[in-house]
Amino acid sequence: MKVPVGISNRHIHLSDREVAILFGDDHELTPFKPLSQPAQYAAEETVTIKGPKGFIEKVRVLGPTRRQTQIEISRTDCFTLGINPPVRDSGDVEGSAGLEIIGPNGSVHIDEGVIIAQRHIHMHTKDAENYGLEDKDRVFVKTGGDRSIIFENVLIRVSDKFSLEFHVDTDEGNAASLKNGQLVEIISVHILR
Amino acid sequence: MKVPVGISNRHIHLSDREVAILFGDDHELTPFKPLSQPAQYAAEETVTIKGPKGFIEKVRVLGPTRRQTQIEISRTDCFTLGINPPVRDSGDVEGSAGLEIIGPNGSVHIDEGVIIAQRHIHMHTKDAENYGLEDKDRVFVKTGGDRSIIFENVLIRVSDKFSLEFHVDTDEGNAASLKNGQLVEIISVHILR
Repeated sequence: MKVPVGISNRHIHLSDREVAILFGDDHELTPFKPLSQPAQYAAEETVTIKGPKGFIEKVRVLGPTRRQTQIEISRTDCFTLGINPPVRDSGDVEGSAGLEIIGPNGSVHIDEGVIIAQRHIHMHTKDAENYGLEDKDRVFVKTGGDRSIIFENVLIRVSDKFSLEFHVDTDEGNAASLKNGQLVEIISVHILR
Repeated sequence: MKVPVGISNRHIHLSDREVAILFGDDHELTPFKPLSQPAQYAAEETVTIKGPKGFIEKVRVLGPTRRQTQIEISRTDCFTLGINPPVRDSGDVEGSAGLEIIGPNGSVHIDEGVIIAQRHIHMHTKDAENYGLEDKDRVFVKTGGDRSIIFENVLIRVSDKFSLEFHVDTDEGNAASLKNGQLVEIISVHILR
């Protein structure tokens, strides 16, 4: 049960409202390159994000726009910004952290929307059938190599719009010396104390 | 079998020769605060380290001086600097990466000495006896919490000069949302494929 790795750098999903504030009223995001998940793309647009302690420039906007703005950053970024967002599944932003987003046309402060993304596996419905797994299952993932890690509680997300990929952030990727496209393994684990 | 966590930020151990070049001929390191391992200390001195792609300022010098200069950085730092050091046990620097070290009195280029430290557990001889472990054993360490990780191949280092601590770098600490002093667990693992 092998799965290719996709390492997510910090990024931001914007709502139409925030695109208008940051880039101008009739602005539409410009696709820059497609992502591995169908119809998703990295946009040419970037923003600056700013917390009480510091800021990070050139944060990539992903498209298409979403109902609610969501910013996914690493724990390392949190120390730079001086904020303490929760570890959450994508879309679960209620009561998460806020910060200031700065674009070329204006800036906006959001009260919530900043999360550290919980690692997860995107899986097409057919992959899930093959593997005997269901949406919202949790599995162990073993990486291999000289810094091998077994990630616990990896969320399985199943859709006929997904292609198979294990998503981690840069902290997780660097901790295990992972590279994009590298294969990792879904395993079962017996823990003996 | 619980062990407290110690997260190591990037740091540098200097030889007497490099202290003289960087800080001046008769300079001696000034202890700033003691580390958890006996007789080791963070010094008041810091240096800048510089690679082909970028530099990092205020890298803490640890004392006392050593026979050979050794710089321990994270994979995240490697991207900033533009170098690709190996993952190594402390002291094993042959053929590792190099960079430029800049101090207030001068600078020096080292050809080797830069490593990403292999995570390890420092353990007093009495702890090792209690746990039934020996120097150079490898164990699994489970962290707990919502980003729980099982670290494989954790090196056991036993000495009557060591106090019990699980040493990871900032990438590993951030990937698992660890805090200094948090307790983690040495476990046995049965992997089923």
